Amino acid sequence: MADEAPLHSNNPIRFGIVGCAEVARKLARAMCLAPGVTLCAIGSRSIEKAEKFAALIGLSGTQVKLYGSYDQVLDDPCVDAVYLPLPTSLHTQWAVKAAHKKKHLLLEKPAALNVAELDRILEACQSNGVQFMDGTMWLHHPRTLKMKNLLSDSKTFGPINYIHSTSTMSVNPEFLETNIRVRPDLDALGALGDLGWYCIGAILWAKDYQLPSTVQALPDVTTNSAGVILSFTASFHWGISSNNSTATIHCSFFANSSMDLAISGSNASIHTKDFIIPYQEDWASFELSCGAQFADLHIGWNVIPEEVRVDCELPQEASMVKEFSRLVHGIARDGVQPNSKWPEISRKTQLVLDAVKKSIDRGCKLVQL
Amino acid sequence: MADEAPLHSNNPIRFGIVGCAEVARKLARAMCLAPGVTLCAIGSRSIEKAEKFAALIGLSGTQVKLYGSYDQVLDDPCVDAVYLPLPTSLHTQWAVKAAHKKKHLLLEKPAALNVAELDRILEACQSNGVQFMDGTMWLHHPRTLKMKNLLSDSKTFGPINYIHSTSTMSVNPEFLETNIRVRPDLDALGALGDLGWYCIGAILWAKDYQLPSTVQALPDVTTNSAGVILSFTASFHWGISSNNSTATIHCSFFANSSMDLAISGSNASIHTKDFIIPYQEDWASFELSCGAQFADLHIGWNVIPEEVRVDCELPQEASMVKEFSRLVHGIARDGVQPNSKWPEISRKTQLVLDAVKKSIDRGCKLVQL
Repeated sequence: MADEAPLHSNNPIRFGIVGCAEVARKLARAMCLAPGVTLCAIGSRSIEKAEKFAALIGLSGTQVKLYGSYDQVLDDPCVDAVYLPLPTSLHTQWAVKAAHKKKHLLLEKPAALNVAELDRILEACQSNGVQFMDGTMWLHHPRTLKMKNLLSDSKTFGPINYIHSTSTMSVNPEFLETNIRVRPDLDALGALGDLGWYCIGAILWAKDYQLPSTVQALPDVTTNSAGVILSFTASFHWGISSNNSTATIHCSFFANSSMDLAISGSNASIHTKDFIIPYQEDWASFELSCGAQFADLHIGWNVIPEEVRVDCELPQEASMVKEFSRLVHGIARDGVQPNSKWPEISRKTQLVLDAVKKSIDRGCKLVQL
Repeated sequence: MADEAPLHSNNPIRFGIVGCAEVARKLARAMCLAPGVTLCAIGSRSIEKAEKFAALIGLSGTQVKLYGSYDQVLDDPCVDAVYLPLPTSLHTQWAVKAAHKKKHLLLEKPAALNVAELDRILEACQSNGVQFMDGTMWLHHPRTLKMKNLLSDSKTFGPINYIHSTSTMSVNPEFLETNIRVRPDLDALGALGDLGWYCIGAILWAKDYQLPSTVQALPDVTTNSAGVILSFTASFHWGISSNNSTATIHCSFFANSSMDLAISGSNASIHTKDFIIPYQEDWASFELSCGAQFADLHIGWNVIPEEVRVDCELPQEASMVKEFSRLVHGIARDGVQPNSKWPEISRKTQLVLDAVKKSIDRGCKLVQL
C-alpha cells in the first residue's frame, strides 16, 4: 500500500497524534490546513477515546488510523512525525520513545518539567536524527517576524531597555479542582509551565535568546494545596555587558485574559495585546511608537502609536506545522541534519523557566544564570 | 485698590507663581483657563527672569506683578495662593515659608525629597490653615474618574490582581549633563522623583491608597556619577489581607516616551498609554476588556478590548487649578477646614517613593512598609 511506503520527496509528512488533548483538535485542523502534511493516525489510551476525538474533528476510521494506545502510533511505519500533547509529566517517557522509533517530534509546551528531562528528550532526538520542535505557535506568526525586523533595526529601535509580558486567564472553580494544568502529578509547573512558557519565550525572543544574568520571582506567588503554581510575577535582568535590560512577566489563572508583550527601546517601542493567540486568524497587529515626544508645554504628544497590521495566510499553528514539515522533508529528502534552532529555543526557555522555579522554591531569592 | 483687598467670596483666587520653571508656563495657561482664578504675580530670582517669563506667556508688567525675588511674592497681600515649581531640594524652605505667610500651596511634584521634609511642609500648611495640593495633574482628568468608577464596580471588575505602570522618556546627552532633574543638589531623586512619582501615585490610586506591605527595587538601577537615579524598576506587594495584589513599575530617562497604566482584575482589565499627559487635550481614552475568553479551539477571542472615550472640557492642569481654587474658596468663604484628601495622597506617594529609595540604597533588598 502506498501509505506504508517510506517517506518520499513529494509525499506529504504523515502525522500521528499521541494523546487526544483539547489542543490536539486545533493541531489536527492545522494539519489539514498546512501544505505537504497529512494526519494519518490518532492514538489515545482507549480506542473509544480515539474514535470520539476523530468524530469531533470530523474524521472517521476510514480516513485516519485510530489506535487504542500510544505505542501503536509509534510502531506504525506510516507515521513520519508525531504531535505529542500529553501532560508534561509524561513528556520524557513518550518523547524519548518516539525519537527511538525515529519519529520526528512536535512536542506541546511546556517542553518538560525541567531542563534535565528536556535534555533527555533532545539527546534522544539528536541521536536518532529526528527533528524536534515545541508547540509554541506564536513564534510562527508573520507578525512575530515583522516585529523582529523592527527590533533588529538598531537605528530605528535603539537598544532594548525593558520588556514586559503577561499571560493571564480567569479560570472557574472546577478548573482549579480538576484541570490537568493544576495537578501535581500531571502538570506540576502549573501557571509557570502553561502561561510562563509564553512570557519567558517572548522575553528571550526579544533579546535574541541571550540568557538573562539574573532571575527573580516576586513575593506574590500563589500555589494550590499541592504546591502547584497558580500565579506569579518574575523579573529578569541582563547585565551591562549584554546592554543592561530588564524584563518583568506576570502570569495568573486568576485574572481577566491577557497576552501582552511590550518592548521598549531607546527610540521606539512596540506593544501587542494578543501575542499568544491573535484576536482573529486572518490578520494581527501591534502598536508601534517611534520617537515619541511631548508637544510644546507638554499638553499633548507629537506622535501617537500607529497600528501596524500584518496579514496572515495560514493560522499560526498551521504555519508552525508547515515549518516543522519543511524541516522534516529536508531531513528525509536531502539528508540534511535536523535543524538545531528550535531545540535550542526550547532549551533556553526551559532553562529560564527552571530558574524562576528555583527562585520561587527558595523564597523569591535572586538566581544567577 | 481692589486687588489689594482680602479674598471675597466672589473674587477669583489670586495666584502667585514662585519660580519660572518650564512647567510654570503650562500652569500659567491653566490659571487663565480655569474659572474663578487669576494669575496676579510672578517671582523669579531676578526681575529680568520674571519679565522674560511674563513675555513668554504673553503678559506684561501691567497685567501681572513681576518680582525679582520669591519673598516678594510671598509678602504680597494680594496673593492668595502660590504655585511653587522650584527644584525639589528647595521645596521645604519655600513651601514652609509660603504656608507661614498664609498662602495656599500648589506644590509641583515630587512633593519633597523624603517624607520627613514633606511632613514639615504639611505641618506648616495645617497649622496655618492653608490648603495643600501637589501638582499631579492626571488625577484631575475626567478619564481618571471614569476609570475609578469601573475599578470600584467589584462585580464587573473583580478584585485587582495586578497593576503595571511605566513612565519613560528618551533624553538627550545635554539633559544628562545639565538638567535640574539629574542634579544631586536640585532634584536628587532623579527619575524616581520625576517619573516614579506618577507610577507610584497610579498604583496607590488603583488600590484606593492602601499602602503595599512590601516594596522592592529590581537589580537594574542606573545612576549617574553623583548617584542620581536615571532608571529603575520596582515591585510592590499587598498581602493576602489586602487582597493579594502586585504592581510593577518601570521608569527611565533612556527609553522611548511611555506613560502606561494597566490594571488587571479577575473579570476585567483597563489599559491606558497616556495616563500622565493625554495624547490630546479635548478627549482621552482607555481600553477596557471585560470577560475576555478564547473562541472555540482557541483560534481567536470572544471579545476584543473596547476603547472608552472621555471628553474633557478643560485641560487636566486647569481642572487641577479649578479644584484647588474651589477648596481655597471654601476655606476663605465658608471657613471650612482645608481638605485633607490631597495632602494624604501626597504623603502616601512620598512614603512609597521613600521605600523604593531605601530598597535601592540597600542593594534592592525587600523593604517592609
